[in-house]
Amino acid sequence: MAVLNARRVLVTGSNRGIGLELVRQLVRKNNCPEQIFATCRDPDGPLAQDLKNLAAKHQGVEIIPLDTCDPSSIKAAATKVTKRLKGAGLNLLINNAGILKLSSLETETPENMSEVYKTNVIGPMMMSQAFLPLLRKASQESPQNGMSCSKAAIVNMSSEGGSITTVYMWHLAHAVNYRCSKAALNMLTRCQSLGFDKDEILCIALHPGFVQTDMGSSVGQAPLTLDESVQAILKTLSRLSEKDNGTFVNWEGNTLPW
Amino acid sequence: MAVLNARRVLVTGSNRGIGLELVRQLVRKNNCPEQIFATCRDPDGPLAQDLKNLAAKHQGVEIIPLDTCDPSSIKAAATKVTKRLKGAGLNLLINNAGILKLSSLETETPENMSEVYKTNVIGPMMMSQAFLPLLRKASQESPQNGMSCSKAAIVNMSSEGGSITTVYMWHLAHAVNYRCSKAALNMLTRCQSLGFDKDEILCIALHPGFVQTDMGSSVGQAPLTLDESVQAILKTLSRLSEKDNGTFVNWEGNTLPW
Repeated sequence: MAVLNARRVLVTGSNRGIGLELVRQLVRKNNCPEQIFATCRDPDGPLAQDLKNLAAKHQGVEIIPLDTCDPSSIKAAATKVTKRLKGAGLNLLINNAGILKLSSLETETPENMSEVYKTNVIGPMMMSQAFLPLLRKASQESPQNGMSCSKAAIVNMSSEGGSITTVYMWHLAHAVNYRCSKAALNMLTRCQSLGFDKDEILCIALHPGFVQTDMGSSVGQAPLTLDESVQAILKTLSRLSEKDNGTFVNWEGNTLPW
Repeated sequence: MAVLNARRVLVTGSNRGIGLELVRQLVRKNNCPEQIFATCRDPDGPLAQDLKNLAAKHQGVEIIPLDTCDPSSIKAAATKVTKRLKGAGLNLLINNAGILKLSSLETETPENMSEVYKTNVIGPMMMSQAFLPLLRKASQESPQNGMSCSKAAIVNMSSEGGSITTVYMWHLAHAVNYRCSKAALNMLTRCQSLGFDKDEILCIALHPGFVQTDMGSSVGQAPLTLDESVQAILKTLSRLSEKDNGTFVNWEGNTLPW
């Protein structure tokens, strides 16, 4: 069975919810990554205490301040990470940071739409651009053939809420701001998969399930625990290869329709 | 054969390209709409001269100044149109205004992304909200059963460039700003089709083809003339019914994958 063996990983929005749980489960693995860059907007704020406690216990976890909406913040983070990597590449970029604004179709606002698009789409786009040299380096230096999340990959945390085909959970929440942004993020993922194919960087849009996070609970009674979702996600990431490049999969690895 | 018989129509971005040609062909029809609201950002600018000439010859065409990115401009246009309709509803809203910025995946900018999203997604969303009372009125007052573009419809001018499945013409233009916006517009269309279903307002995402417009020619050698595309579009609009609600069709009426 395939094992996830990404040695150097970056997770955005890692102070809460799925991002935090990803870091938590990654450090618990037998073959724990050597370096985990756990980014969040405000490492000194009250919402980052759990992450700080985790990082205090695990040498490999480094907290990096990062606002994924701010180009200068991304640039500073990329410079910092490049330095810490000491010449190595980055194997796995998980664009996890995301937001949702509850709204109805008729009362959706341009402000919500813009803000959510910035965080959920433009952020991942800029992050992938800024960290592309490090992902390329990881890919080039890997002895492995083909593509994998252990070698070089961009994982964009999407949502089946962004599936134009299923419009998942419409009756629970319209949240047009979120749905449009995730459909656009899926398109970005497809574009990245085509553009970075020659670099053998695997690009995936991932639906984590309807999970008991702050975001999930704001929408309704989520069936999946954080632990269940992230265990399954890590198993799925270990199995992905070039045949999955540019696809949309759920936590269990099942392909979703766009 | 079905005939397009929308009596009151609004077309955004109608001073050039497909928008202008839609107005041109609509006024040439035997059963020409009674009122066509042809909107554009700057009716007094040099790019609106053709539309002005057309409106001067056809009493039913009224030019309405409208910047679809500006909520106050939309509000003013809706007030004006409501007044001109003298109690009647609006049968057909064609959200045609759209932009594209040439760019590559690696050099795409947050500014491009935001600007194109505003015009191509947030604009159509706000337009549909503002004109919803008039579309509802048209639907309620129609003696016709079911849905059609003659009764009450929102047509969002999308593009197969926004098909996440086909990523149409990737090798001609990355234009991630445009592709992401059109995927999001397709999602908006699906949401509108679900939300306005009870009002019997038909909602469609339409790919006009790769057409010889300023936009089309900026991308490559477009095979379709404006005349061919718009003739086919009008024929397709005449045929759409409730079974097509929330779908993505091309100029010839063929369904496209999301």
